[in-house]
Amino acid sequence: MKPFMDANFLLTTPTAQALYHDYAAKVPVIDYHCHVDPKEIYENRRFSNIYQTWLEGDHYKWRVMRSNGVDEHYITGSASEREKFQKFAEALPKAIGNPMYHWCHLELREYFGYHGVLNGETAQEVWELSEKKLAEEHMGVRGIIEQSNVAFIGTTDDPTSNLEWHKRLAEDPTFSPVVAPSFRPDKALNLEKSGWQAFLAELGESAGVEITDLTSLEQALEARMQVFAQAGCRAADHGLDYVPFQKAERAEVEAIMHKALAGEPVTVAEAEAFKTALLLFCAACYHKLGWVMQIHYNCMRNPNSAAFAALGADAGFDCMNNVSCAGSLYALLDALYAAGTLPRTILYSLDPGENELLDTMIGAFQGTEVAGKIQHGSAWWFNDNKTGMIAQLTSLANLSLLGNFIGMLTDSRSFLSYTRHTYFRRILCELVGGWVENGEYPADIPAVGTLIQDICYNNAKRYFNL
Amino acid sequence: MKPFMDANFLLTTPTAQALYHDYAAKVPVIDYHCHVDPKEIYENRRFSNIYQTWLEGDHYKWRVMRSNGVDEHYITGSASEREKFQKFAEALPKAIGNPMYHWCHLELREYFGYHGVLNGETAQEVWELSEKKLAEEHMGVRGIIEQSNVAFIGTTDDPTSNLEWHKRLAEDPTFSPVVAPSFRPDKALNLEKSGWQAFLAELGESAGVEITDLTSLEQALEARMQVFAQAGCRAADHGLDYVPFQKAERAEVEAIMHKALAGEPVTVAEAEAFKTALLLFCAACYHKLGWVMQIHYNCMRNPNSAAFAALGADAGFDCMNNVSCAGSLYALLDALYAAGTLPRTILYSLDPGENELLDTMIGAFQGTEVAGKIQHGSAWWFNDNKTGMIAQLTSLANLSLLGNFIGMLTDSRSFLSYTRHTYFRRILCELVGGWVENGEYPADIPAVGTLIQDICYNNAKRYFNL
Amino acid sequence: MKPFMDANFLLTTPTAQALYHDYAAKVPVIDYHCHVDPKEIYENRRFSNIYQTWLEGDHYKWRVMRSNGVDEHYITGSASEREKFQKFAEALPKAIGNPMYHWCHLELREYFGYHGVLNGETAQEVWELSEKKLAEEHMGVRGIIEQSNVAFIGTTDDPTSNLEWHKRLAEDPTFSPVVAPSFRPDKALNLEKSGWQAFLAELGESAGVEITDLTSLEQALEARMQVFAQAGCRAADHGLDYVPFQKAERAEVEAIMHKALAGEPVTVAEAEAFKTALLLFCAACYHKLGWVMQIHYNCMRNPNSAAFAALGADAGFDCMNNVSCAGSLYALLDALYAAGTLPRTILYSLDPGENELLDTMIGAFQGTEVAGKIQHGSAWWFNDNKTGMIAQLTSLANLSLLGNFIGMLTDSRSFLSYTRHTYFRRILCELVGGWVENGEYPADIPAVGTLIQDICYNNAKRYFNL
Repeated sequence: MKPFMDANFLLTTPTAQALYHDYAAKVPVIDYHCHVDPKEIYENRRFSNIYQTWLEGDHYKWRVMRSNGVDEHYITGSASEREKFQKFAEALPKAIGNPMYHWCHLELREYFGYHGVLNGETAQEVWELSEKKLAEEHMGVRGIIEQSNVAFIGTTDDPTSNLEWHKRLAEDPTFSPVVAPSFRPDKALNLEKSGWQAFLAELGESAGVEITDLTSLEQALEARMQVFAQAGCRAADHGLDYVPFQKAERAEVEAIMHKALAGEPVTVAEAEAFKTALLLFCAACYHKLGWVMQIHYNCMRNPNSAAFAALGADAGFDCMNNVSCAGSLYALLDALYAAGTLPRTILYSLDPGENELLDTMIGAFQGTEVAGKIQHGSAWWFNDNKTGMIAQLTSLANLSLLGNFIGMLTDSRSFLSYTRHTYFRRILCELVGGWVENGEYPADIPAVGTLIQDICYNNAKRYFNL
Repeated sequence: MKPFMDANFLLTTPTAQALYHDYAAKVPVIDYHCHVDPKEIYENRRFSNIYQTWLEGDHYKWRVMRSNGVDEHYITGSASEREKFQKFAEALPKAIGNPMYHWCHLELREYFGYHGVLNGETAQEVWELSEKKLAEEHMGVRGIIEQSNVAFIGTTDDPTSNLEWHKRLAEDPTFSPVVAPSFRPDKALNLEKSGWQAFLAELGESAGVEITDLTSLEQALEARMQVFAQAGCRAADHGLDYVPFQKAERAEVEAIMHKALAGEPVTVAEAEAFKTALLLFCAACYHKLGWVMQIHYNCMRNPNSAAFAALGADAGFDCMNNVSCAGSLYALLDALYAAGTLPRTILYSLDPGENELLDTMIGAFQGTEVAGKIQHGSAWWFNDNKTGMIAQLTSLANLSLLGNFIGMLTDSRSFLSYTRHTYFRRILCELVGGWVENGEYPADIPAVGTLIQDICYNNAKRYFNL
Repeated sequence: MKPFMDANFLLTTPTAQALYHDYAAKVPVIDYHCHVDPKEIYENRRFSNIYQTWLEGDHYKWRVMRSNGVDEHYITGSASEREKFQKFAEALPKAIGNPMYHWCHLELREYFGYHGVLNGETAQEVWELSEKKLAEEHMGVRGIIEQSNVAFIGTTDDPTSNLEWHKRLAEDPTFSPVVAPSFRPDKALNLEKSGWQAFLAELGESAGVEITDLTSLEQALEARMQVFAQAGCRAADHGLDYVPFQKAERAEVEAIMHKALAGEPVTVAEAEAFKTALLLFCAACYHKLGWVMQIHYNCMRNPNSAAFAALGADAGFDCMNNVSCAGSLYALLDALYAAGTLPRTILYSLDPGENELLDTMIGAFQGTEVAGKIQHGSAWWFNDNKTGMIAQLTSLANLSLLGNFIGMLTDSRSFLSYTRHTYFRRILCELVGGWVENGEYPADIPAVGTLIQDICYNNAKRYFNL
């Protein structure tokens, strides 16, 4: 029996262990897509206790508690930080087989030096240890990032952001990891949603453009992209419930936009036509700027309307969807490819049943700018677990070139989540090491080790022009 | 090499073996959803030979024979019982990798003490042994249930049932397992089907209500639910081809029902509106009664119309479907949650590609009444095999709290199927034991054993208020 | 650690090794569906170098190169054969975990006696070896087929083909493998596509029938089927993007066809009605002829329109689709079954998420002509890899009778692809051997070995009446 989560956690063969310890663990982390707050990095936020690092904003953990029948009082309500942590600690042992179990214990080992097991009984000792540890000098946000060997952080930012904290960080010689914004213009595309007009006003103001039609909207977006580019942005991100593709003449799209600006309702097809036009426009801009376009889709946002009314978005109620929009995604990539405006693109579906679909799809739109120009993103969100990562890696290996994969990202709101790269790297080494051990690939360890380092670091470095 | 189906069948590690033998095997069976006939329990039906226990009504076995090119004469036709058993025995060796192979041999070992291998050559010896064994005192239905350590049986019953046999069983001090009805009102919902009006007449009669409109239909259903509740019912069950959700005003639904009562055709959307209204009504009643609502969907019923015409329903021709009705299922749960009328709910999709979808979905609608209020049901029907159970358990563990899972049910029409709980428990222990052996969970065997017993027994006991 | 791709490649247990070496490897290959050119067999085409056998027409390999950022100049362009091979060899090491890696090295071992590893550095030595080996007497197409122990080759042919090469081969006493045509009438069905009218003209000419309406079209198709039957045809093949099922009266279908003949546009529903009628007609003919009907669907053809314009079809840009057409497929099989005209049928979906769906579906339409009359085809195209084959075999075993499976086909355009049967047989023996080793099936090796030989050879021999 292997000991619980020791140095060879998830690594069962000598080859897997060698690949991890001698190769994977030695390269820096490029966390090209996450949701941490650059202000907290700049200001080097400090935490008083483990609640603030774990439970304050992590809706993955809130779900664990809800699945254990815990009252909202102890999740998003007015219970004390210590009480909330207690409820979480009591729920955790039931999360057997859940990545949360491993993430928590990896973080306890890595950042708090705790090698025990967290549960209701040990919660108090972990709490006290966390208070003590978090008071140490190097346990501010910057110290956490630095000790995690992070080379690059790609945050997710609103087009209207003034990027103040990114700029300050860039000018700060005492902090070497690069923190770059990513451009996420979802609010500009969602003309059927209630806040759209207000957002356009903000966007126009931030860009110094009065947005009255499609052309001025495009001008505003492009102006903001320029600002982002100057602040080191290398990637955009689109969060789509599903991928739309409704081709329409520019005049039609203009008319739809005017209707929406006038507060008139638009049909689903009209909203899709507008979004399609804007997606095509944005993608072409990204292509010109040398940016990477990320498309995240198949999420069912806010399915529990009562919870949404009470707690708002991103509170742990979002789910998978399994609508097929393959036809639209093919059409979108095709239109961009034909126009010569297809940027480097990373596709993420929240439906794990689409792994193989995406791995064949990317093969039809590759280019010569970089090996693996079109990528299938690492197992996303609900799929970010051992099973999900193995499925994504295996499918990608079967249907594309795993050696060109740009690897892992945290997608996290927490500064302790860099251990998810550790988790990914262990799973990758176990999988690839298993193939070598089974005679499915030559046992040339330095060659395989280089391939592992490419996936963990070099490919992303090249892909994002770092 | 492990011996063929010995005491450690499917248990390859010491931890898995300890978890199974010392924990899983020691708790009673709660078979909360099945299709056995309570009359046969009350009357303690006896069987003359293995045909009567295996082939008389088990359409899983009929499929095996059809897949082997066997003529219907030997399946549902007029061949002798011995001839039919011969054809089945001859087909069985080709079922390598099929759960049928394991179910049969588990039953042969458990109930007939036969440790050989069934095939065409051994059919005669098995036949003779079965005749001898089934003549033994304890091999009536009651004896089989008792020796299987079954604590609870939840049958599946028509709302019009007078529950005579359940009542008699409850009053019989010589039989201790609880046999409770489950409420299955499908026929009341299916207003587009030909037997609907006739069923409403029966339903009205059983409830003492003349059903002329939506209100009287609701009254009749509620009256029958009261009768079921008094007979110990704790669960309802809905078998839906797909989950509908068409919201309509009550007046509209009334109008649709009147049209159907008048024998006029209704559109698909109208039928869905009617079903949606009735589903919402039933669910609210279940909530008030403290019942569990089960939803089974994504079944393609009777796709072979010629076979259906010849042999009727439930003859082994039903199949999976893979229509996405995720949006409707989200909407249904949302409406009930918002109204405060969402009962404990178990979701089962026949499409195994929806495991992950359901495991995220349940996380958005949990409550505080019981840990794991909304459940993803155990791998159902065609998925009730080693692969399917591992997939369901792994997905549930990844995305929810496996420790709160209410575990296995047989869904069977046979009294020898309790070995399917054995099968499930072995697979569960092998999976969880594997995680422990691999250092993915602490090797605190009593703690893990308790968790196993929770999944096999305690959680269901609590969930169904037994 | 197992050595890289030695004699026990993919065989990790003694049982798996015994099953492969003593049983699977000993039976001939029946390659019942492929795309090789019978002319090249008759003429015993010879190759000058490995480029001509590997890269001239294999779009799987072109995809590998594109996924490595290789310019089209080195794929389909004017670079030299040696340069193109170099680019492929340089990409191959990145294909870790990809079946291409194994196929290439199996072929290098089997046909070229090369036991090293192909990459950019060894490309020159492999090139030179290939030139030398391919100059050997037995390395013409006929020699390759003979040394691969191939008993039967089912090519894929246009209904208008005069089958000259099949006829010549049948009359050639010096070549014993049977080379039979398969009837692929896709072009006759696709009335919405531009070449349809021209094809009807060709078809009419080949059949000696002037095609002016549905009846004459049917006459022409049936006439061609007769010619195919005389040339030894045993199977037809339909490549459908998705399975249509729109029932219409014959008069309606006639009207739709007349519209299309007049060059007027038809709606999607009209095209589907026409295709449905023709599919039903063709299937009934196949049934009468004793042929096997193959249905391949869920392919997204030519999604990259710019690449299609530049390079045409079958150039490595096709992908999976994941549209559900289960309802139509059920309806098609049902209509044929009810009419008594359902031929032996093999279903292939390119979406691996439909494995379980298909394995339940086939169980509803079996017959008594042959055990396993309706088959779920071996993992097709993008699924033709270790993971995909294990998934298909496991699902088939779970839900049907694996013992009646007709096994592998190459679907290939290359004469070196017979090693894919080797690959399949190893994976099959590893899977089944693993079950035996794990006590899930009796360790009666001769019996299991016979079952393996059935899947590898005997079942297909019986199924295709060879």
